[in-house]
Amino acid sequence: MTDLQFISTTTTDGVLEREFTLGDSIHGMLWSPAAPPARSAPLVLLGHGGGRDAKALPMVGRGRHLVAAGFHAVAIDAPGHGERPRTALDDQQIAAMQEAMSTGVPVGPIVVPYNLHLAERAVPEWQATLDALEQLPGIDGPFGYFGLNMGTAIGVPLAAADARVAAAVFGIFWYDGTLAEHARRITVPVEFLLQWDDQHIPRDSGLALFDAFASTEKSLHANAGAHKEVPRFEVESMVRFFDRHLRS
Amino acid sequence: MTDLQFISTTTTDGVLEREFTLGDSIHGMLWSPAAPPARSAPLVLLGHGGGRDAKALPMVGRGRHLVAAGFHAVAIDAPGHGERPRTALDDQQIAAMQEAMSTGVPVGPIVVPYNLHLAERAVPEWQATLDALEQLPGIDGPFGYFGLNMGTAIGVPLAAADARVAAAVFGIFWYDGTLAEHARRITVPVEFLLQWDDQHIPRDSGLALFDAFASTEKSLHANAGAHKEVPRFEVESMVRFFDRHLRS
Repeated sequence: MTDLQFISTTTTDGVLEREFTLGDSIHGMLWSPAAPPARSAPLVLLGHGGGRDAKALPMVGRGRHLVAAGFHAVAIDAPGHGERPRTALDDQQIAAMQEAMSTGVPVGPIVVPYNLHLAERAVPEWQATLDALEQLPGIDGPFGYFGLNMGTAIGVPLAAADARVAAAVFGIFWYDGTLAEHARRITVPVEFLLQWDDQHIPRDSGLALFDAFASTEKSLHANAGAHKEVPRFEVESMVRFFDRHLRS
Repeated sequence: MTDLQFISTTTTDGVLEREFTLGDSIHGMLWSPAAPPARSAPLVLLGHGGGRDAKALPMVGRGRHLVAAGFHAVAIDAPGHGERPRTALDDQQIAAMQEAMSTGVPVGPIVVPYNLHLAERAVPEWQATLDALEQLPGIDGPFGYFGLNMGTAIGVPLAAADARVAAAVFGIFWYDGTLAEHARRITVPVEFLLQWDDQHIPRDSGLALFDAFASTEKSLHANAGAHKEVPRFEVESMVRFFDRHLRS
């Protein structure tokens, strides 16, 4: 894969922020230390949540934060997200989720299979992105992965399929038999976030997904609060986790 | 309480380490910044595990670590521990625990009521210690508490009874109705450790105890591994937790 194109470049507070395309489908953001010559550092993959994209504010914040802590970071738009075209299935599933949300019907039975379907399309795109980025000067493997919600539905199959992912932070997702099969093939260190008072994800479902990982080093961080109330200090914890596992 | 006596004082690597007695029963260790004038800093109470005492190596390590991070730290011997006399009940319970351990019988039904009995004796001793220490120059309230195993059996009733405990790290203990009643009266921030593969404490029992705390800010850290395999990085997490909650 040699068609990586940087389509815009900005530098803010020591962070080099590059928007890129790869082939016809992949669009993403790469955050790197700006100091020349580009410092060699490990790369952390950022998987965004449903309805967001690589340029969403939480991605930009985490990307810059990781660069300040001495990493590169990259995010790519999931299929049907950002400016990527939606399929008829995308439209139908999004409508079904919105309908469930507005009527108070459990949303998990819609989100889980739809996100796993997106993962089948997203995993090869992440792998093509890694193929391209590992050619760049200053980017060290192996890689870390951070993604909650849909970022977990995509990241778990990715980490199960690609040995370049050496440590991963997942969470805020339902137990599912297919997803658990992927989790049982993951042996790298895992940090897993769960919201103790999640109004969408039953507590036992999140605990069962954490339990499925085969990793001998795995940590569950379960915080009091609702689905979207993941505490900000978990970003610091994520940085320290990658410090422990991606520095050689 | 004015009979606080420092019986030995050493200074190592910037840490002033003072062994003290208070009245006839209390014996403990106080770790403080050595730099004169004594820096004013919050105090963290360290509750030791069963069979250990205030001078045990994990206590000394955590005390010095906390001082390096800008805190004072204190540990006192629990009743029947260290050089304190044992009662007939102490001897009987310790023998029963050793018997259970050697025969593979569940040890929880012995440890839990015995440790809660010790807590009834230990809580007033901790409170007397706080009464004395808060008179010392350089020690700021409110206080933090860190204690696992028996340190949780003692610390939970202490934190429920004494509003000077403003943040606490507990864990590695069984659910029990009496202990949970105390936990339901605790509203300060709590970090709670659980070993996912604990051979003595059933997973659901630990999760139920975490669930009992009334705190709106509480975080469960469940790590893969057996009863005694709490990862070392949890000490760092404890320091950051107290940084967030004890600095005004």
